[in-house]
Amino acid sequence: MLQERVIRIIGIDPGLRNTGWGVIEIVGNSLRFVASGTVKSDAKTDLATRLKTLHDGLTAVMAEYAPHEAAVEQTFVNKDAVATLKLGQARGIAMLVPALAGLPVAEYAPNAVKKTVIGVGHGDKKQIHMMVKVLMPKATFDSDDAADAIAIAICHGHHRQSAQSRAILAGL
Amino acid sequence: MLQERVIRIIGIDPGLRNTGWGVIEIVGNSLRFVASGTVKSDAKTDLATRLKTLHDGLTAVMAEYAPHEAAVEQTFVNKDAVATLKLGQARGIAMLVPALAGLPVAEYAPNAVKKTVIGVGHGDKKQIHMMVKVLMPKATFDSDDAADAIAIAICHGHHRQSAQSRAILAGL
Repeated sequence: MLQERVIRIIGIDPGLRNTGWGVIEIVGNSLRFVASGTVKSDAKTDLATRLKTLHDGLTAVMAEYAPHEAAVEQTFVNKDAVATLKLGQARGIAMLVPALAGLPVAEYAPNAVKKTVIGVGHGDKKQIHMMVKVLMPKATFDSDDAADAIAIAICHGHHRQSAQSRAILAGL
Repeated sequence: MLQERVIRIIGIDPGLRNTGWGVIEIVGNSLRFVASGTVKSDAKTDLATRLKTLHDGLTAVMAEYAPHEAAVEQTFVNKDAVATLKLGQARGIAMLVPALAGLPVAEYAPNAVKKTVIGVGHGDKKQIHMMVKVLMPKATFDSDDAADAIAIAICHGHHRQSAQSRAILAGL
């Protein structure tokens, strides 16, 4: 009997205060929820300590769930430069941690994530949460950021599969 | 004989393409140049790999020179959001690496660095380089970013000393 290969994906929605993460599995053609959560950093501590908190939290998640691939939201910010710099710093850590573990790290723009999960490139957080529950009824999340992270993982699960199909077809 | 305590400081000027670093020592009231350099990331590789390159390069510098304290430029960017996000990502790594080694990480605004090194809060890169050579004749640097990193370390050396003097006076 051929054993189906299980691919574990971690999705990360980076933020300095709250970084959401969601781990899912691809088994054959279906996606399965594994776990999700939020790494929080204390706004009262200094920036370097906050970044270390994000690093340590994500490193612990990587160790516990041992994903094979990572996907991080390619957040585009229209706010002020200070907010963008803050987000960038958190995002640097979110990209670094899976890279240090040797994982390939894919990036998806928010509208790509929405298009995969909702079906269109726009929509609010509530729609994303609802569709995450529809696509993955067993999914649980403790924050908006964790729900977004699951959506990012689902997005990678779909795009990764179509990329694989193309590779298989190309190889025939 | 009382042996003078030597404090080693690493200054870091973060950038996704080029991250400059400079290590200096405080011995009594004088500052001494130790080493400087530039960690470069390949623009042709993906973002996660580039951030890992910066991480690995700075981690190697930390291991070789074992500084006691770190100072990172608090860059303010007026460019577009994409450039600010890129800088933020590199800056996240520059703050994280010394924090992971257990070092306190100070932040200095560019005008604070200029005020310490040039004497006024404005001035161009050439003036900074000239004054770095005046203040620390043995200093060598392979890039603008490495020279800026030495200036950041000098800035911390001065502010740290005055903070210490205040602490000593307060203790009398």
